[in-house]
Amino acid sequence: MMRLHDHITSGNGYKVRLLLTLLGLPFTRVEYDIDRGATRTPGFLRLNPNGRIPVLEFEDGRVLAESNAILCYLAEGTRFLPADRFERALVLQWLFFEQYSHEPNIATLRYWITHKLMNDERRAQVEGKRRWGYAALEVMERHLAEHRYFVGERYSIADIALYAYTHVAGEGEFDLARFAAVRRWLERVAAEPGHIPITQA
Amino acid sequence: MMRLHDHITSGNGYKVRLLLTLLGLPFTRVEYDIDRGATRTPGFLRLNPNGRIPVLEFEDGRVLAESNAILCYLAEGTRFLPADRFERALVLQWLFFEQYSHEPNIATLRYWITHKLMNDERRAQVEGKRRWGYAALEVMERHLAEHRYFVGERYSIADIALYAYTHVAGEGEFDLARFAAVRRWLERVAAEPGHIPITQA
Repeated sequence: MMRLHDHITSGNGYKVRLLLTLLGLPFTRVEYDIDRGATRTPGFLRLNPNGRIPVLEFEDGRVLAESNAILCYLAEGTRFLPADRFERALVLQWLFFEQYSHEPNIATLRYWITHKLMNDERRAQVEGKRRWGYAALEVMERHLAEHRYFVGERYSIADIALYAYTHVAGEGEFDLARFAAVRRWLERVAAEPGHIPITQA
Repeated sequence: MMRLHDHITSGNGYKVRLLLTLLGLPFTRVEYDIDRGATRTPGFLRLNPNGRIPVLEFEDGRVLAESNAILCYLAEGTRFLPADRFERALVLQWLFFEQYSHEPNIATLRYWITHKLMNDERRAQVEGKRRWGYAALEVMERHLAEHRYFVGERYSIADIALYAYTHVAGEGEFDLARFAAVRRWLERVAAEPGHIPITQA
């Protein structure tokens, strides 16, 4: 059985848990205390030299890191990744947008706030991350004002990746009130058959 | 003919220029003055609502943003992207590593320094970006100490993406002296047939 090296409140971990569940693929979880360096031990660094969860470990011992790479691997040949070459590229475009323009701002502020990790170095970055986080939400709002899902008007891993930290953006003190299209899309994703919450192990 | 919306010193633009050249695909470039907001105009935001180059525009008007998504699109079915499903996932793993753990540190410091954009907000982030940039180089060094290329012992878009900002890391005041395996890999990539420098339009 596949093993997911994970942390339960991680949106990056949740992306993988959600897709594995939607695909009906059985897996076990290994939980790490990320605040206490559990992903920086020599043992963990052998799994992922970059020292981050999630990591998906296959039964034969192969490992794959980076949540959005794991999503692409698992989704291949399923309804969660389009067959069309250009649509697949658009899915990747949104996955890279998520990791570059969205997660480092929206997820990071949530992490610092909910895990009580604020210090001077981090406090100096809050205003910038707030500004760029809202800019990412504006990009999503503009797209979702004209589309039901991010690519091809169908639920795909682009939606899964962006849902993970958007639906808990409030925990990072982002106010979604003015993002009406984003809020309707969040409801649409949560209503997809087989959906599970971020807290479900 | 394809049009690449670009900025000549951008490593993200260079990735696409390099692959297009290696593939022998003709293209024209549209140059933007990124320091003066040329990618934040209403016209550019219609191309890419996220306001960033590079953007690849196809002859039929379709557009694709995010450098690494463009690499994946162009490399599909070529020798620059493995056919094996797991190897392709590993390529993506390194592409996401590049955009999350490498580029925001190494490329961003280079950009602030070479474009003379340092201010108080940015100065407060230099130490953190320096630390995380070196951490990314350590991850690369560890991998390249045992491998000639990032995936499958063959030159792929994982190498192209990571080469783009690593080979000019010195411009961001990163010292590669202790990264011997990284330096040997940089030479290997630069010796690939058809290689072009970052300054070649």
